Amino acid sequence: MKVDACGNKAPHEVVIVGGGFGGLYAAKALGKANVKVTLIDKRNFHLFQPLLYQVATGSLSPADISSPLRSVLSKSKNTKVLLGEVKDIDPTAQKVMVGTEAIPYDTLIVATGAKHSYFGKDDWEEFAPGLKTVEDAIEMRRRIFMAFEAAEKETDPVQRQAWLTFVIVGGGPTGVELAGAIAELATKTLKEDFRNIDTAETKVLLLEGLDRVLPPFAPELSQEAEASLKGLGVDVQTKTLVTNIENDIVTIKQGDEVKELASKTVLWAAGVKASPMGKVLMEKTGAECDRAGRVMVEPDLSIKGHPNIFVVGDLAHFAHQNGKPLPGVAPVAMQEGEYVAKLVQKRLVGETLPQFNYSDRGSLAMIGQHAAVVDLGFIKLRGFFAWLFWLFIHIYFLIEFDNKLVVMVQWLWNYFTRNRGARLITGDLGLEAVPAESNGHYPQVNTRQPLNV
Amino acid sequence: MKVDACGNKAPHEVVIVGGGFGGLYAAKALGKANVKVTLIDKRNFHLFQPLLYQVATGSLSPADISSPLRSVLSKSKNTKVLLGEVKDIDPTAQKVMVGTEAIPYDTLIVATGAKHSYFGKDDWEEFAPGLKTVEDAIEMRRRIFMAFEAAEKETDPVQRQAWLTFVIVGGGPTGVELAGAIAELATKTLKEDFRNIDTAETKVLLLEGLDRVLPPFAPELSQEAEASLKGLGVDVQTKTLVTNIENDIVTIKQGDEVKELASKTVLWAAGVKASPMGKVLMEKTGAECDRAGRVMVEPDLSIKGHPNIFVVGDLAHFAHQNGKPLPGVAPVAMQEGEYVAKLVQKRLVGETLPQFNYSDRGSLAMIGQHAAVVDLGFIKLRGFFAWLFWLFIHIYFLIEFDNKLVVMVQWLWNYFTRNRGARLITGDLGLEAVPAESNGHYPQVNTRQPLNV
Repeated sequence: MKVDACGNKAPHEVVIVGGGFGGLYAAKALGKANVKVTLIDKRNFHLFQPLLYQVATGSLSPADISSPLRSVLSKSKNTKVLLGEVKDIDPTAQKVMVGTEAIPYDTLIVATGAKHSYFGKDDWEEFAPGLKTVEDAIEMRRRIFMAFEAAEKETDPVQRQAWLTFVIVGGGPTGVELAGAIAELATKTLKEDFRNIDTAETKVLLLEGLDRVLPPFAPELSQEAEASLKGLGVDVQTKTLVTNIENDIVTIKQGDEVKELASKTVLWAAGVKASPMGKVLMEKTGAECDRAGRVMVEPDLSIKGHPNIFVVGDLAHFAHQNGKPLPGVAPVAMQEGEYVAKLVQKRLVGETLPQFNYSDRGSLAMIGQHAAVVDLGFIKLRGFFAWLFWLFIHIYFLIEFDNKLVVMVQWLWNYFTRNRGARLITGDLGLEAVPAESNGHYPQVNTRQPLNV
Repeated sequence: MKVDACGNKAPHEVVIVGGGFGGLYAAKALGKANVKVTLIDKRNFHLFQPLLYQVATGSLSPADISSPLRSVLSKSKNTKVLLGEVKDIDPTAQKVMVGTEAIPYDTLIVATGAKHSYFGKDDWEEFAPGLKTVEDAIEMRRRIFMAFEAAEKETDPVQRQAWLTFVIVGGGPTGVELAGAIAELATKTLKEDFRNIDTAETKVLLLEGLDRVLPPFAPELSQEAEASLKGLGVDVQTKTLVTNIENDIVTIKQGDEVKELASKTVLWAAGVKASPMGKVLMEKTGAECDRAGRVMVEPDLSIKGHPNIFVVGDLAHFAHQNGKPLPGVAPVAMQEGEYVAKLVQKRLVGETLPQFNYSDRGSLAMIGQHAAVVDLGFIKLRGFFAWLFWLFIHIYFLIEFDNKLVVMVQWLWNYFTRNRGARLITGDLGLEAVPAESNGHYPQVNTRQPLNV
């Protein structure tokens, strides 16, 4: 039992690394507990990632789906927020390192998440950006809308078609939602905006390695989603692997057949790769990691041999429920965060909890602005009711009431006008890099930096 | 009279350079005219600049005050939008150069605007960013919110106070609105968000070279604005010139007295500097420019000797009404754009118009979220009615109905919760550049590029 300078029992210090669904829900659940909480994040806001694809396709602004962490936690007087990046921990001294500062903890909750993976081919990242952060979404948005601008100026028909060809890799919910949104952009939203091109000539291809899109969903819903996508004009290609991306050519393998697709805008929505903290925990605590770098956790979400270090959310590999690891989705992270918060409080009074049990309430995906599939296990929804349900659930879980209001207003507007209100191209546009002559292409660019013009 | 390949009279080609208030209002006014219109802009959207300071202080998102040009003009079937930068013109051949492409015109309307000026000290720009583009606003927002984050981590009280000291240079509407918004951020919005600092200790200084803020307004309203600013805790210093900005020190001169202010966040809202097209027009057409680089125009807004080349908006120096050049404000640009559009149509049928006459409907400025001053000439408003009027006018002139809706929703929300919904810090944060030790400062940074971490 620690004591402070006056001999009083020092409060239990909980340090939470990461303000995503796992970390933030843990912090909120500890808001009235008899502990001191420090939440550390590289960013000053919580990002509602399920709607990030809408920022990338111009329907919403980043602020509409972000909540400043300090604001969300301002009423939790036992909680302070620290803007910083944790790169190292010392489990013996029980400290995390933020820059040169050492932050002591009694309980550590690591919730730094995961991102997409290029299956070892990290050099594909500059050709095929993924969708994890606000900056990623803005870069994706830039490329999508610049492609139409470039096509408008392009005189060579082959190059023009390459500008109007979008390839999305990965048939999970993110890929499906992106593909549907881009197809709708081309056929509806931008229909009247250009004079030299007919955006209806846009080709959108969705590539999935398994035999159906939305593999975790029930098979009939995968079929429904594929039908909706095709209805929007998306070319869905399953059992398709990407073998190379280079110089505006995507090489794919279907069975024994190899094909080349000419596309200047490739978007990546596949794979899982844990954040660097996974490796740090492995090295400093002896924790085991899976192939994606996620940390294997005990039935109570702690690390073996370190009962006061927990991992929740996308970074955790939890397979104690049915042998298969829980998916990296928001509801899993939320429930894990809340469970650990409860466990910490139980332990403070000498009690404990049964092992963590995820309550799977279902999965959902939106295709375009008008169709959705919802799998609640006992019931599956399609069509209009799926769509309403999808809207409701996302509004419900948005933190901060003004976000709920603004997103509702934007969606109502977008729906009734078939428009999209946030189609800015921001940052350096690289106009010189998209010349009127043929063979224009995007300069190689790190997605975190705008082009240097 | 030009004829096309079939011997038919070729349509009159109007080329408009710039999609701000001047260019866009000209384009809209020509939407049904018997001409072909090409609008060229470096960006794909029109920016409602009067509200840009609200993006910089976290109240609104860029998309809330931006309208995609193609969308605004999509119904004008005679109009096409070109994304590109005009860097040169050939008045003899009647062409503008966009990259290597030459766009022919019969009438040219140049509306590329102006920005702030550092009075020759351009090296101050990295220490004291201005507010002209969306990227400027996002960079300003980043610095403002990072200052509070840095203060929260700072252990040296002198450095901490420098982080909590904001200096705004320029007492026109932009400077007044920025100063008021930052003061409110500190004393109201962020009050509960930090644990190590008390944001009420923030100092906001507004520096103005003349003897009162809002110099173009009636004197009693300048006094009112100053009183409101002081009520919010802003330190208003008039008859103050900035003589140097370097290494977190702003050197000022008041009469014979020289002082140094320690501040890590200096924001620039002073001076006028015309866009580069001013110089191009001077070199290629012999037009005269004033000290700020603005182009002297004839009573019909054309360039002397070139009756088919017009300049409207902030780039134009029009002094034929009362000897003083019209100010660089939105209503002037709107009216000039519409006048030229009307004149073009009159000339097509062999008629003309009397000289341009600006109808000055008044000026307005907002101080914080609760006070405003409105000068309508015959009547001056203060307090609640000024505030309502300011809100109404800005909503009214926002293009695109979804922007009006979203901004109204955001403002209602911000007002009733005393919150600000768009306080993201985006882009590379430069966390390593803001260490916990003293003497942390912002890396020197080009405001168009995020920090390279």
